[in-house]
Amino acid sequence: MYTIGIDLGGTNIVSLLMDKGGKIILRDTRKTLADKGKETTLKQIENSAKAVIEKARRKGIKKKAIVGVGIGSPGPLSIKKGIVRFAPNLPGWRDVPLVDFLRERVKLPVFLENDANAACLGEWWKGAGKGKKHIVLLTLGTGIGGGIVINNEILHGAWDTGAEVGHMTIVVDGLPCGCGSRGCLEAYASATGVVKRTLMALEKVKKSSLLERVRGDKEKLTSRIVYEEAKRGDSLAKEIAEETGKYLGAGIASLVNILNPEVVILGGGMIQAGELLFEPTRRYASRYALKEAIEGVEIVPARLGQDAGAIGAACVVWKRTNNAG
Amino acid sequence: MYTIGIDLGGTNIVSLLMDKGGKIILRDTRKTLADKGKETTLKQIENSAKAVIEKARRKGIKKKAIVGVGIGSPGPLSIKKGIVRFAPNLPGWRDVPLVDFLRERVKLPVFLENDANAACLGEWWKGAGKGKKHIVLLTLGTGIGGGIVINNEILHGAWDTGAEVGHMTIVVDGLPCGCGSRGCLEAYASATGVVKRTLMALEKVKKSSLLERVRGDKEKLTSRIVYEEAKRGDSLAKEIAEETGKYLGAGIASLVNILNPEVVILGGGMIQAGELLFEPTRRYASRYALKEAIEGVEIVPARLGQDAGAIGAACVVWKRTNNAG
Repeated sequence: MYTIGIDLGGTNIVSLLMDKGGKIILRDTRKTLADKGKETTLKQIENSAKAVIEKARRKGIKKKAIVGVGIGSPGPLSIKKGIVRFAPNLPGWRDVPLVDFLRERVKLPVFLENDANAACLGEWWKGAGKGKKHIVLLTLGTGIGGGIVINNEILHGAWDTGAEVGHMTIVVDGLPCGCGSRGCLEAYASATGVVKRTLMALEKVKKSSLLERVRGDKEKLTSRIVYEEAKRGDSLAKEIAEETGKYLGAGIASLVNILNPEVVILGGGMIQAGELLFEPTRRYASRYALKEAIEGVEIVPARLGQDAGAIGAACVVWKRTNNAG
Repeated sequence: MYTIGIDLGGTNIVSLLMDKGGKIILRDTRKTLADKGKETTLKQIENSAKAVIEKARRKGIKKKAIVGVGIGSPGPLSIKKGIVRFAPNLPGWRDVPLVDFLRERVKLPVFLENDANAACLGEWWKGAGKGKKHIVLLTLGTGIGGGIVINNEILHGAWDTGAEVGHMTIVVDGLPCGCGSRGCLEAYASATGVVKRTLMALEKVKKSSLLERVRGDKEKLTSRIVYEEAKRGDSLAKEIAEETGKYLGAGIASLVNILNPEVVILGGGMIQAGELLFEPTRRYASRYALKEAIEGVEIVPARLGQDAGAIGAACVVWKRTNNAG
């Protein structure tokens, strides 16, 4: 028995055929033509799923051996209704009945999941959270997304908006956040937040290797450059890295105190920074969290990279059809 | 069929006999003689349970109609092992096998739950969270405790330390907290936090009705006095009440963004302040939380008062014996 997992991203559509043990049998990847509008993207999803079914057939795997299709989508979603309510990176997507659309075309059961939740479920099934019952994932990119697994189940909440871990308030009256609030974790510890705090700090200094790296053009600054210069010893960049660990550690401590997970997994582009990110984060999380909650909690990098969402989407099919993964 | 719920508090031991519909049939209440040591308190619990069984017998309710005993205890606990690891308000309590102790003496199945979780389950079963699947309780007293119900189940986490909602970091590098960390919600929005912030604000003024109320003796200040003076129009007290709503609103917004509950219930002594507490709290929670998560969330007072813990403890028996409450 097999399942198909599809990760619908603003950049790529990744579809995987997986077996019940979590082995990837084959894949289809295509660039998302989001700019061409909703109909084009929907057709791409259909074609990707059909391509996987066809490739499977050529390998001797019959369609009736495929239990269903899971799809991880940006949200907010209505999971029970199978509807994408809105997707910031997919122009024109408003109240799209994605599950009905795909089920009618591929003639298989289809299950919808939030993309960040799917990535979390992927890490729980086959990645850094394997074998754990309670995990938290934070994805550190332009923003901070995440997912929560409690008792081996994704936390959805009352209307499927749970696990918005990037929008915990960590500094009341703090820096403005893209969500319209202030002081959110995302405003401090996302790649965007790191750049913003670095630019604020650069206002106060005359000389920094960071300024040399971007030849004075501050718009070229990225969190990657900040961490590279921190590694080379630039004192301002090192201070920013330390403070990023403090903010992230505070956010993780709150999650640990509230949820008592066994492992906190960090994913997204920023984890390329390695120990410059992880060491201060672990140190501050231990300082801020209750001893009995944080003791024994691992804070580790995600393992599945770009595949996490599609792997988790494939897992969703096993979970929702009561075939324990 | 009936269950017994016991709330083991530092002040009182409350035992209730309840029916499956959640009706309180009879009760036994006794002052906790915590100072007399562990053995005395254990004997009190035994006597209270036995008193309920005896009173039930006199009402014609046979012991075999009693399914079991639930007990809500201060923690940290090991729920699966039935052990109270430590209880700050019960001197001498260290690794007490409370479940084994009580089961051997009353000859009924006994189930342990954290006291704050029990109160939350009580509100879910018969109080302000009745009919909801996802609720959060914050108990605003000397400290801030709480409980979380997700999908009709208490969130325990990996080692039963979940739902420590008072120790979310809401101000990185903020006021010191009793837990050893800084900037916790409890440090700002508990009764103790309110008094502390008021005293800090009083340092900067020469005249305030608050100072008159305590005749210059600042040690006599309580959060109750602050809210009473805010009601009478004292500007400093009003400002403190406004800010308490801001801190509490920020903490609730984080919980709403993470957990997506249908209702947030506030309990504990501080809710006597009424709208002076609730109005700013609701306003700031709406401001800080994601629109799609907070829309439709009610922030309401707890309904069960002192009985919440014992009612929830009685409910624990139904849940753990798979008799849905």
